[in-house]
Amino acid sequence: MTALMQHNEEEQEIMEVSNRFAVIKNHIEDAPQESHFELKTESLSLSLMAGSDDIVVKNLYISIDPYQINRMKSHSSSQKSINFAAPITPNQAIDGIAIGKVVVSGNPKYQKDDVVVGVFTWAEYSLVKEASIINKLNNSEFPLTYHIGALGFNGLSAYAGFFEVCKPRKEEKVFVSAASGSVGSLAGQYAKLFGCYVVGCAGSQKKVELLKNKLGFDDAFNYKEETDLKSALKKYFPDGIDIYFDNVGGDMLEAAVDNMNAFGRVAVCGVISEYTDAKKRAAPDMLNVVYKRINIRGFLAADFLNLFADFVSQTSDHLRSGELQNLEDISSGVETIPSAFIGLFHGDNIGKKIVKVARE
Amino acid sequence: MTALMQHNEEEQEIMEVSNRFAVIKNHIEDAPQESHFELKTESLSLSLMAGSDDIVVKNLYISIDPYQINRMKSHSSSQKSINFAAPITPNQAIDGIAIGKVVVSGNPKYQKDDVVVGVFTWAEYSLVKEASIINKLNNSEFPLTYHIGALGFNGLSAYAGFFEVCKPRKEEKVFVSAASGSVGSLAGQYAKLFGCYVVGCAGSQKKVELLKNKLGFDDAFNYKEETDLKSALKKYFPDGIDIYFDNVGGDMLEAAVDNMNAFGRVAVCGVISEYTDAKKRAAPDMLNVVYKRINIRGFLAADFLNLFADFVSQTSDHLRSGELQNLEDISSGVETIPSAFIGLFHGDNIGKKIVKVARE
Repeated sequence: MTALMQHNEEEQEIMEVSNRFAVIKNHIEDAPQESHFELKTESLSLSLMAGSDDIVVKNLYISIDPYQINRMKSHSSSQKSINFAAPITPNQAIDGIAIGKVVVSGNPKYQKDDVVVGVFTWAEYSLVKEASIINKLNNSEFPLTYHIGALGFNGLSAYAGFFEVCKPRKEEKVFVSAASGSVGSLAGQYAKLFGCYVVGCAGSQKKVELLKNKLGFDDAFNYKEETDLKSALKKYFPDGIDIYFDNVGGDMLEAAVDNMNAFGRVAVCGVISEYTDAKKRAAPDMLNVVYKRINIRGFLAADFLNLFADFVSQTSDHLRSGELQNLEDISSGVETIPSAFIGLFHGDNIGKKIVKVARE
Repeated sequence: MTALMQHNEEEQEIMEVSNRFAVIKNHIEDAPQESHFELKTESLSLSLMAGSDDIVVKNLYISIDPYQINRMKSHSSSQKSINFAAPITPNQAIDGIAIGKVVVSGNPKYQKDDVVVGVFTWAEYSLVKEASIINKLNNSEFPLTYHIGALGFNGLSAYAGFFEVCKPRKEEKVFVSAASGSVGSLAGQYAKLFGCYVVGCAGSQKKVELLKNKLGFDDAFNYKEETDLKSALKKYFPDGIDIYFDNVGGDMLEAAVDNMNAFGRVAVCGVISEYTDAKKRAAPDMLNVVYKRINIRGFLAADFLNLFADFVSQTSDHLRSGELQNLEDISSGVETIPSAFIGLFHGDNIGKKIVKVARE
């Protein structure tokens, strides 16, 4: 109670801030465009009501993730029950993973200047409850942004997806799509570190070079230069694919299933090629799925929080030793959120897309 | 050696038989028709060469299975490496599961009049090697045909598919397609015996009544009377589907995925709706697969032979007690093989389709 009073007294100097935040004007059904978004400004009070346990966070870095497009659609009936996919309301603040600094806190667990990662908003400031905060990041050994990349949910997706869902054996043949993306780049590197043969695909020659030269993939190809994905995969996997870490869905999933070995596993992390075009749905050959006993399994990192400590420990070791690269693609300013987000669907980013909203 | 000589001497009376067998005239790409088949006649010698370990089997019952259509296609490149899917050559005898009686044996393990189940041919007589014989059925407690139904690979498909692939929990909601078919009818009954809520679909009102009244399904529907499979499943599963035992693929698989609960499992046993029309491929919503963490897994009974003894023991108990029904649909005469096979794709059969070739 005393702490709260003190806080309030300290914050008397600045009673409110002007807060810019990104919204969608309407639901988005297809590919997102700049015109779908708007930057709004609100006045945010920094004087908490007496007894409030609210926390005001000044955002530093915002994680920009493709799955958000699915929350922007007008209806996702079958996903309604899933928190992860809770619909975004037009003209209201969009929640998403971010890193920020506590400005005011009515909650005794958080103090001014604590650095926190959590589910905040696509905004300069976020008014949050304790439940939205995932972790404190005070005195982080690594750059703060790593905690929404290799050491965050993207990293956990790659780690749990590869080790728990794919259940790899050494020397197995692993294919990763969207391999220069935030999750794909890590999944491929884990597979290499584990001792698999890894081929990735990406959408530009620059990305392909990066996969081969910087991330240590055994091979990589530009899917945009391939007219027949099935033949392309046959060329890169003459002995077949054992594991497909799928980030794209669509015809790449079909081609991968055609090239899989018996008892092959597909870990479906995301299907970005289908997010903005419902007609692009994958129709994998189910006869192959039966005859080759293929296992296609969707997963969410959130189901593997029990692995978080191990994941962070191992990943930190790999980052320290330099064996694992955390690719980042950072733009600056809250006003760049729409273009950063839209760019995900054009393959503009290399690695984790982040918007830097304020200086640390 | 003495035994062999004696056999040969005994068989001197009948030196050869006229053997009728079914063939395909050419590869079959779409729905099979009578005109695609031909009944050929050959003269089969019953005098084995000295030192031969061949066995001549007089077939009694031939198992008629939908998967054979996939072996009749001109190319199934991606399945080439899978024995189960070895191509059938036009104008040559078609191999398949059957029950027969040994007529002549050069192999000391098999004697004249032994009743055997194995991979023989769609014929009156089959000349086979020891490796083609799966089991002796002398003194079977159950009708012989049960050994290509509830006690054979169809039963094992249902048993292993339900218990090992679906990993059920009591009271889970189970959907079975082609539920009056040989595998579906057993899978649904296992699910009921285990304590699940089970709904099946089939292609006629007669089959629907059978599922509800004779097999004890909680509910059943005629998919041909439904204009919107997604809505139909929503009606029958207001609380969602936990397990889908898939025998058909196509739009039923799509509708099932739309109606699945989180962590739902799809055991893909077969996709008969896709066998005769490549354009009918299922395009399940992969976003649902991710968000609901659905696991879609193809399987073959042959991978679960380690369970065979347990499966036979438990299934025999259920058959003895009358808790499990083994549905059979038997036609007579080797000349009925083509129509029996073609009928599978029109839903003509109820339960296991068998052609009786000779009296026991």
